[in-house]
Amino acid sequence: MRKIVIDCAGGDNSPNAPIEGALSALEKFPDLYVILCGKEEEISSILSEKAYDGGRVEILNASDVITCHDKPTDAVRLKKDSSMMRSLKLLREDDGIFGMVSTGSTGALVCGATLRIGRIKGVIRPAFCPILPTMDGGIVGICDTGANIDITPEHLRQFAVMGSLYLRCAFGVESPNVGLLNIGTEAEKGDALRKEAYPLLSETEEIRFGGNMEARELLEGKFDLVCCDGFSGNVLIKATEGACLEMLKKLKKDIFSSWKNKLGAFIMRKMFAETKEFMNYQNYGGSVLLGTSKVIVKGHGSSDARAVCACISQAYRMESASYVECVEDALLKIEQRNREKENV
Amino acid sequence: MRKIVIDCAGGDNSPNAPIEGALSALEKFPDLYVILCGKEEEISSILSEKAYDGGRVEILNASDVITCHDKPTDAVRLKKDSSMMRSLKLLREDDGIFGMVSTGSTGALVCGATLRIGRIKGVIRPAFCPILPTMDGGIVGICDTGANIDITPEHLRQFAVMGSLYLRCAFGVESPNVGLLNIGTEAEKGDALRKEAYPLLSETEEIRFGGNMEARELLEGKFDLVCCDGFSGNVLIKATEGACLEMLKKLKKDIFSSWKNKLGAFIMRKMFAETKEFMNYQNYGGSVLLGTSKVIVKGHGSSDARAVCACISQAYRMESASYVECVEDALLKIEQRNREKENV
Repeated sequence: MRKIVIDCAGGDNSPNAPIEGALSALEKFPDLYVILCGKEEEISSILSEKAYDGGRVEILNASDVITCHDKPTDAVRLKKDSSMMRSLKLLREDDGIFGMVSTGSTGALVCGATLRIGRIKGVIRPAFCPILPTMDGGIVGICDTGANIDITPEHLRQFAVMGSLYLRCAFGVESPNVGLLNIGTEAEKGDALRKEAYPLLSETEEIRFGGNMEARELLEGKFDLVCCDGFSGNVLIKATEGACLEMLKKLKKDIFSSWKNKLGAFIMRKMFAETKEFMNYQNYGGSVLLGTSKVIVKGHGSSDARAVCACISQAYRMESASYVECVEDALLKIEQRNREKENV
Repeated sequence: MRKIVIDCAGGDNSPNAPIEGALSALEKFPDLYVILCGKEEEISSILSEKAYDGGRVEILNASDVITCHDKPTDAVRLKKDSSMMRSLKLLREDDGIFGMVSTGSTGALVCGATLRIGRIKGVIRPAFCPILPTMDGGIVGICDTGANIDITPEHLRQFAVMGSLYLRCAFGVESPNVGLLNIGTEAEKGDALRKEAYPLLSETEEIRFGGNMEARELLEGKFDLVCCDGFSGNVLIKATEGACLEMLKKLKKDIFSSWKNKLGAFIMRKMFAETKEFMNYQNYGGSVLLGTSKVIVKGHGSSDARAVCACISQAYRMESASYVECVEDALLKIEQRNREKENV
């Protein structure tokens, strides 16, 4: 059995979405076992109305909830009986559990995971890696998008390695093309961090480095993974999401401004519905915190059951592909090469 | 007469677009005088076919061209007879000329302007400030987007001051709402640079500081000016442009994929044309290099005559509103207050 713990509180649609998402995941993966963490009575009551394999579901009671208004460090320290902190505690203590999914506070999850769950051997710092759809029907990962702000070239190299292995393990992208986010495509562009990271990424055998990339190339599908510091990665993903959403809002407003447009849009309704669906992040799973010794997936706060199921599937595929071991191996090889170089 | 020099080479549509744009600007502003810099024969030949006020047009011969393939520092040093370097030389030497417009290489222009044209008194470093349309029909400026990468909180304050005055002088935005680009909206968010810049911006009387902003808010119209380092500003504007363009491309592709969609789009053709026009940067003028002692506007490489005319209009409005003097005054006041604080 592959055991995962699901934080059933803190999201907009909690506890229903996490519970229903978990039950869907059980149907997909016959050797999956879920531990639902939250208010026991509530969870029991929802479960009592569902049909599921009772031998693969367990409830872990947690009476408190971390909300987005809680300061992350305080939440981690003070809300020990929250579903998130209880889940993390169980994850740390039970070697039989491989991972966790939460739709609660991102800040508290990063903070809690960093403090309570160890890192994979060799990892300097864990990093966030959300996934976006590209216009050619593929996906692109961005690592990091906010967990790390002041970093070194070696951090960037680790983001590239962890992100590449993630895309391979979770999405079957065999040899992800890695781009270094920069202000121009030429090798000598950028600040000191980027200038030093470029040769470091070039010499790393564990990744396929495609050179510098500009932010405008994100959705084109040329790169599978964007390697960046948490500040610019955060700007990249939020600017992209913001622009797409504002464009859709504007189209909608324009459509409703005249009967002609309404008619046209009615004829094109299937296309517009598909566009909206294409842009629905719920279809692409959550952001994974890469580099922790257990798999931790953060679903969007507004995740529905399908989105939670996608997050669990992601975690499951990473575990099946031995993600943690792959990262450890790759970083060990890099370290060995570094040591050999020093000895020469 | 208000004299401006126009670099007539280096853009995709040079020399036609710069020349025609300049002639349009002459019609708009009766006291404008243009110096067209480029290959004299070529310019004369184009002018000979046009009707214009010959008393307000002059040609400055320059036989060479800086292309986007030239390394900026080499171009500035070696291509002394290029239209861009000749224009900058004239701008520096002739006190009667207030500014310059170019659609050539951005890197060479920033490099050349920094080396050849002095800064406004008090300015630490010039910064780039492009303008984007917002979804509510307004505009938003982003300062800086690439001229400065490793900066201090004091730089950010100057970007905010120079950008605010620019929006007032060139676009009539009376009291621009300034946002500090960050990874969250709370005051304590971000890296050391942002944490230090926040109180500095808050206490600056010369601007209206609206707090931290996230990249996703860019097009909403809440902020008039985004204050940021050149790296994240570059990511912000390119990610936004890229996402909008990719969305439009996808819509177009989807429309042509079925006759139903084609019919719908035909009925909605006016709306789609307006959306395309709304997103056409050519309508919003160029990016101004703020902080140099003369007004320098960089038009997009693919600018047509209308876009060049918009760039000239921007420069003209800045000159009419005494932009350079306004910046000098504001920075002097800040410096005086700083000195008083130190003496207390």
